[in-house]
Amino acid sequence: MISAKIITIGDELLIGQVIDTNSAWLAEKLNELGVEVKQRTAVGDDREMIFHALDTLLPDTRLVILTGGLGPTRDDITKKTLAEYFGMELTFHEETLRHITEIFNRLGREVNELNASQAWLPSGCIPLKNWYGTAPGMQFERNGVHYFSLPGVPYEMKALFENYIRPFVAEKLLPDTQILHAVFHTQGIPESILAKRIEAWELQLPPQIKLAYLPSAGAVRLRLTARGSKNEPLEELLKAEGEKLKQLLGVDLYAEGDEPLEKVIGQLLKSSGKTLALAESCTGGYIAHLITSVPGSSAYFMGGIVSYDYVAKEVTLGVHHSDILQYGAVSSQVVLQMAEGAKRVFGTDYALSASGIAGPDGGTDEKPVGTVWIGISTPHQTRAYLYRFGNDRMRNIRKTALAALDLLRRALTGASLDDIKSPDLKEIVVQNATHQNA
Amino acid sequence: MISAKIITIGDELLIGQVIDTNSAWLAEKLNELGVEVKQRTAVGDDREMIFHALDTLLPDTRLVILTGGLGPTRDDITKKTLAEYFGMELTFHEETLRHITEIFNRLGREVNELNASQAWLPSGCIPLKNWYGTAPGMQFERNGVHYFSLPGVPYEMKALFENYIRPFVAEKLLPDTQILHAVFHTQGIPESILAKRIEAWELQLPPQIKLAYLPSAGAVRLRLTARGSKNEPLEELLKAEGEKLKQLLGVDLYAEGDEPLEKVIGQLLKSSGKTLALAESCTGGYIAHLITSVPGSSAYFMGGIVSYDYVAKEVTLGVHHSDILQYGAVSSQVVLQMAEGAKRVFGTDYALSASGIAGPDGGTDEKPVGTVWIGISTPHQTRAYLYRFGNDRMRNIRKTALAALDLLRRALTGASLDDIKSPDLKEIVVQNATHQNA
Repeated sequence: MISAKIITIGDELLIGQVIDTNSAWLAEKLNELGVEVKQRTAVGDDREMIFHALDTLLPDTRLVILTGGLGPTRDDITKKTLAEYFGMELTFHEETLRHITEIFNRLGREVNELNASQAWLPSGCIPLKNWYGTAPGMQFERNGVHYFSLPGVPYEMKALFENYIRPFVAEKLLPDTQILHAVFHTQGIPESILAKRIEAWELQLPPQIKLAYLPSAGAVRLRLTARGSKNEPLEELLKAEGEKLKQLLGVDLYAEGDEPLEKVIGQLLKSSGKTLALAESCTGGYIAHLITSVPGSSAYFMGGIVSYDYVAKEVTLGVHHSDILQYGAVSSQVVLQMAEGAKRVFGTDYALSASGIAGPDGGTDEKPVGTVWIGISTPHQTRAYLYRFGNDRMRNIRKTALAALDLLRRALTGASLDDIKSPDLKEIVVQNATHQNA
Repeated sequence: MISAKIITIGDELLIGQVIDTNSAWLAEKLNELGVEVKQRTAVGDDREMIFHALDTLLPDTRLVILTGGLGPTRDDITKKTLAEYFGMELTFHEETLRHITEIFNRLGREVNELNASQAWLPSGCIPLKNWYGTAPGMQFERNGVHYFSLPGVPYEMKALFENYIRPFVAEKLLPDTQILHAVFHTQGIPESILAKRIEAWELQLPPQIKLAYLPSAGAVRLRLTARGSKNEPLEELLKAEGEKLKQLLGVDLYAEGDEPLEKVIGQLLKSSGKTLALAESCTGGYIAHLITSVPGSSAYFMGGIVSYDYVAKEVTLGVHHSDILQYGAVSSQVVLQMAEGAKRVFGTDYALSASGIAGPDGGTDEKPVGTVWIGISTPHQTRAYLYRFGNDRMRNIRKTALAALDLLRRALTGASLDDIKSPDLKEIVVQNATHQNA
């Protein structure tokens, strides 16, 4: 097994104003390729700390990937630091200037000095063409260790990885190691309850298979990783353990692999030829955003109404004014009418609705911050679910969206709409669509 | 100046399935406090690598913050690894069990063995109460270096930082160092054009002040950092340089400090007593999500319609069927009518609309992926802007939202709606509201 180090460069990482998504992405891709990332470190735009990061490789490290610090501005020093580290001069690279000029011409703009300076590269490096930007990548080799320096802009970095590093690893570094992953997604069950449920199974796992919990707001992913040599029957082993786990998870499993819930729902709607509409209050368009982040969602998502204001709920969704007055906007009555209103306005088979107090203000003793009613209208019935989430606005929005999407998933797969395990769920109101007078 | 190391622990970080937002947050807070984060590293749930991370501190490191690996499940080994590292036994901590039991009682649940095991802590550590979860934090000290181990769940980690580490740094570690930041936000100008515009100013900056570019999709933040001792007049220095920079940025500066665009707009709407509605197609609810992520947005945001389907545009927004047929859904005619429709339906002063081809499919020769029309309707006029963004769906959605919000900011501040610098902007159509027959 080969090990790798990821070094992300940029003062912004140490000051915390930018979140390092690059190294997570790189780590995931390297793992898929069978390269183990043992070191992941972030340093500032600082010659000494970049040197330090390059000097503290583990003995078995054969691949080093650096990202960031290649921009045209004065604070970016990665290129000249690498030149110094490898004892190289900067030399002018004609082809890179041509590429930079092409990019600028395509945008109808002039190449300025700063951009042109990006064509000066360390003499002994292999320049790597950056399709989407002006900062080229660079490849170095010393004592059997391979170094790749990539720009920090995520889509530029990703393209360079796919075009250069992936084939390089496959052809030059790929060890006789097999790594397989299987991921199982659950929603609405806390980690500790889940752990208890699958404890006996976990204890009997063969040594080649490791389990990891990946919790996030309202959801827990379980990842099985199988590691071994190429002649081991890892796929069978992983499949067998995955089947046992699926039995234990039952209907609480909502997806396998890398599918987010919104994609699972998209597939279910698409394959059944059904359509969806939304009526959102406290989630403020977030459910619609999740649904429409899936390419091709226009096939089944007709639209949604973000009815933030009382009047908007009445005018656009036909919620009864008297019900808002009597029961409040956060009530089963209102989310039931919102769901049916959305279904009617957009002419769909299904609709979801949500109305709640996301926080930080607006809570009362009776309806504290975190109180959310979620509505679902299917071709057969309309239901409302009362949840009590927490105090954090963004987490409440996220949890509401996931709970709503999971209800839809259950409806689309024919699973029970009564047997929901979330400890946040407090009440269910069921109503047949035909009884609805909205 | 004191230096710190952040160690984030968890296999998920090295496999890349979880993005490390904790260390960005910690780095930002530590910097504000005047602590320089020189090392930031991520390791797996692996005894040896945790030891390695603890053993490779820089000579001037006096603060080490570890996050993650404190969960109740078997793959979390931080606690026992720290006990071994500091040569301590695990002992039962009565008060922690009481706290865990309280949390579970409040949720109406039973404490299981796994949760109870979290009350066993290294004998020589100071336990730190975790208000929002069952895994306590831990504080250690050895040879003048202070170690804090915090849970990986972000809101639990943040509360522990605020309650224990912030006061500890202020009282015990705070050096005679002043660090001040000023952040300036721009939208729609590429980094290299910006760099050229402010180059002369950047070169004359005093040595105490450093400039950093923080680019993200469609926006560039400029951060000035002033460092020095407490008796230096850094505030005046920073203010003076900030003023010069603001002159150079002019109306392209949309905010100072840590304000996202959606918050700036919220303040502008609130202070002027004006209201907003949205009509979104290609952004699919994302603009509404941004607007409603700001607490208190219900004061000025009345609602929005996500009209993903053609029929939805006609029925809910009153877009003329004949115009959709003649010009297509991605056209100036349609976004103009969408904006005015939203204003009418929700009865607001302003409305934004967007219709485009986010991708990856749906592009044509005439309207390739990335083609987006944005509409804005003010009390005086309605305008449509044609943008050509790129090929990436999520970036197109994000860029469209930012461009739309920036148009609204300009309208609300009385800035020119003609002088937009973005190289992606291709055409502007202006129409007086009174000429609109929708």
